[in-house]
Amino acid sequence: MEPTAGDLTDPLINHADGQLFLHEAFKIIVEEVLCKGTDVKEKVCEWREPEELARLLDLELREKGEPQENLLQRVRDVAKYSIKTSHPRFFNQQFAGVDYHSLAGRFLSEALNTNLFTYEVAPVFVLMEAEVLRGLRALVGWTEGDGLFCPGGSTSNMYAMNLARYRLYPEVKSQGLWSLPQLTVFTSPESHYSVKKGAAFMGFGMDNVILVKGAVPFLVSCTSGTTVQGAFDPLDRIANVCDKHKLWLHVDAAWGGSVLFSKKHSHLMKGVHRANSVAWNPHKMLVAGLQCSVLLLKDTTDLLKKCHCANATYLFQQDKFYDVNLDIGDKTVQCSRKVDCLKLWLMWKAVGSAGLEQRVDKAFLHARYVVDQMKKRDGFQLLRDVSSHLNQPEFVNVCFWFIPPSLRGKEKNPDYQNRLAKVAPVIKERMMKQGTMMVGYQPLGDRVNFFRITILSPLVSHKDMDFFLDEIERLGNDL
Amino acid sequence: MEPTAGDLTDPLINHADGQLFLHEAFKIIVEEVLCKGTDVKEKVCEWREPEELARLLDLELREKGEPQENLLQRVRDVAKYSIKTSHPRFFNQQFAGVDYHSLAGRFLSEALNTNLFTYEVAPVFVLMEAEVLRGLRALVGWTEGDGLFCPGGSTSNMYAMNLARYRLYPEVKSQGLWSLPQLTVFTSPESHYSVKKGAAFMGFGMDNVILVKGAVPFLVSCTSGTTVQGAFDPLDRIANVCDKHKLWLHVDAAWGGSVLFSKKHSHLMKGVHRANSVAWNPHKMLVAGLQCSVLLLKDTTDLLKKCHCANATYLFQQDKFYDVNLDIGDKTVQCSRKVDCLKLWLMWKAVGSAGLEQRVDKAFLHARYVVDQMKKRDGFQLLRDVSSHLNQPEFVNVCFWFIPPSLRGKEKNPDYQNRLAKVAPVIKERMMKQGTMMVGYQPLGDRVNFFRITILSPLVSHKDMDFFLDEIERLGNDL
Ligand SMILES: Cc1ncc(COP(=O)(O)O)c(C=O)c1O
Ligand SMILES: Cc1ncc(COP(=O)(O)O)c(C=O)c1O
Repeated sequence: MEPTAGDLTDPLINHADGQLFLHEAFKIIVEEVLCKGTDVKEKVCEWREPEELARLLDLELREKGEPQENLLQRVRDVAKYSIKTSHPRFFNQQFAGVDYHSLAGRFLSEALNTNLFTYEVAPVFVLMEAEVLRGLRALVGWTEGDGLFCPGGSTSNMYAMNLARYRLYPEVKSQGLWSLPQLTVFTSPESHYSVKKGAAFMGFGMDNVILVKGAVPFLVSCTSGTTVQGAFDPLDRIANVCDKHKLWLHVDAAWGGSVLFSKKHSHLMKGVHRANSVAWNPHKMLVAGLQCSVLLLKDTTDLLKKCHCANATYLFQQDKFYDVNLDIGDKTVQCSRKVDCLKLWLMWKAVGSAGLEQRVDKAFLHARYVVDQMKKRDGFQLLRDVSSHLNQPEFVNVCFWFIPPSLRGKEKNPDYQNRLAKVAPVIKERMMKQGTMMVGYQPLGDRVNFFRITILSPLVSHKDMDFFLDEIERLGNDL
Repeated sequence: MEPTAGDLTDPLINHADGQLFLHEAFKIIVEEVLCKGTDVKEKVCEWREPEELARLLDLELREKGEPQENLLQRVRDVAKYSIKTSHPRFFNQQFAGVDYHSLAGRFLSEALNTNLFTYEVAPVFVLMEAEVLRGLRALVGWTEGDGLFCPGGSTSNMYAMNLARYRLYPEVKSQGLWSLPQLTVFTSPESHYSVKKGAAFMGFGMDNVILVKGAVPFLVSCTSGTTVQGAFDPLDRIANVCDKHKLWLHVDAAWGGSVLFSKKHSHLMKGVHRANSVAWNPHKMLVAGLQCSVLLLKDTTDLLKKCHCANATYLFQQDKFYDVNLDIGDKTVQCSRKVDCLKLWLMWKAVGSAGLEQRVDKAFLHARYVVDQMKKRDGFQLLRDVSSHLNQPEFVNVCFWFIPPSLRGKEKNPDYQNRLAKVAPVIKERMMKQGTMMVGYQPLGDRVNFFRITILSPLVSHKDMDFFLDEIERLGNDL
């Protein structure tokens, strides 16, 4: 059947209807997610068992479409049963809170729907990304360099490994690892699991993330702000070793990097300017929204491009009418790449470096406040950690056991650790089912399940911290 | 200085101010991006030289924040100078157009700001992602299997390589590639560059993406819808070879996968159910919005988890009060992972499989229409390609040279190819600077620069196709 022009006259999408729907959905988002979702009188989560939730949501995809009212109800349902991660009592993850300027930037990025690979399709964002990276590099202490927004800190960590091995053995790009000696990554046991995952993915093998006898170290991955305890590796000392052995120094500051905004706390990363690369997630402590994650590089030799380019002619034509160095897409191993810079840029413009510094400083104050309050109450036992010589937590992670009255003073009992291990999961279950707040727990090494609260949301007040402690007691006192 | 409760009373963010800003920004987005940005009377792009654009945007990040009016003007500026990728005359990339249901889903995902790693922080999306993957797998012809949304087709292609090598040599995960024989990926020269980039990143080396004598093939990567010409590899024939040699068959259907929605065109991917894995980007032809990209797997042995898990105890506790198989995060090499399923789900619910089928069918009709019109005009010469035995393009890519009057009938002239090569770049420059439309060009093998138009936007009518041809003539007739 031949197409006739008649079939092709009308677009398939009606803008008026579409925009009406979008307006209605926007209203629901504001009401459910941004108002109710941040109201301490409302729940953080509306727990449902998976089978029940699946039924409530009616997830099945069908042949026919649905009327707009149904679809708006679906928007409402998705909002209702989703976790309110912006709620002041959400302490479960390394992200929390909401920044409205960032959110506006995110809506705009979504509506503009473009890809960060060439100047021709993303003129504003090519320039903007460069400026944001420059601003972040300046905080690291570099006036030159390179970088990239990546889909997460795990990816940034992988990039660092790829660049380090390429610098040492450029033939790896064409010939693979077989032509190279066995390489190892040095890192600490507290480093994020993405270092191991990345090593496996990139062909190094997880076993080579440690010291392997006879193998060639090529990269040291330090952590600034470990995931669980929030510890900072001593960068200057490690940089001395790296200098001596000419090793690539990577700093995984996915979590801790934001201290660089703070005059008071940036000392935690003293020596970071000596690194070759830094991974930093503004979506965590700066509340830039998921995802916002950068890799920063000191390199000025175009290593990123050399290491990753494939010179696709359909995208990166060399006979363009503008400077083709603006077509940054060949620096990545992605092709499509989301615009993640706008949200950070707009938020930074809105509150300035000073406003971001204030967020970081306030998070530290809150962490110290909650520790002080814990010391005043029975039953809250702080973890002895690498920074236990300090009177206060090194960062905004506060790790602690809640010891219910029945276990207090029973440390010598043979079943003490076993019983203690069961406390956090029960409290967590009750908290989720009642929906009053969220905080995570985990074991670590030989330490049984303890809570980790990470405090970073700019929406939090000390009342939320007091509530947190009261609530842990309320949920756990009978255990 | 000790923190006092007083410092900690007020949250740093004011909801009323923030929501006001968001409302104003939303209005600008609707007006500038969705109304003007899709209006054929308005420009597709507002070209500026990079230096001028940087100045206009005032990108610099400063110590102090800015008043709201300034920030709203910035939202307006970003919209103004960005490319209108939803404009009916944007044919530059494999994405275009706008779907309002998807966009509402994207706004909701951004506002909910969660991560797809555990049921506890993403109950709705863990279930929804599974359902969307199930729906897409059904179109491939699989009633069981696995899968994941990835940050782009390039990443999906890498995952397929990682799974294939792990299946063959599980020790690679711990020991790396050194303990394995040299492995090669078979693929065609027309395959997407991400196969080569991925091979380099994962330690195989780019040279091993071809047939290397003495090396062990472990994966064949076919393409369904090549990037430039839109060609489909014969899957059934290749599957026969893979069966025989027990090779992993990966189908890169990032671009072409959406034909599976169409009863009329799904035959292009006949045999796809015999593959081990399929990469498919609904952000391309289905207009789901960037990014929306899936990896689909036939595997039912939990390979994805086994291959990628690191069992981080801080995230994936095994003593949770719900089924921990719902914590899907350990299937990926990412940690944070964006919610990319909601936009596709909501759009699919809105128009049904039937509506998505209609989009695909209409795109084919438009491609055929434009080819028919080209044949009626002087100066449009279609590329002879792999599908040149057909009277019409195999897919929605239309590749052609525009031959200006001065070159017509001069094919035998020695400088013909050189002069022809310069035509597309000049037309492109004029088109960008006047902002009337956007289409890409590239050389390929020994064929000099030609245009590639990809037709997929549901906003397009045949008038836009006519305009396209008129405009190419107008811009190129004097060359
Ligand atoms: C220290 C550290 N590095 C890396 C990551 C991974 O970052 P992402 O989740 O963005 O991949 C995290 C957080 O989850 C982290 O805490
Ligand atoms: C055939 C093919 N495979 C893979 C890709 C890469 O997908 P992505 O840009 O999402 O990484 C593309 C598109 O750009 C493509 O056309």
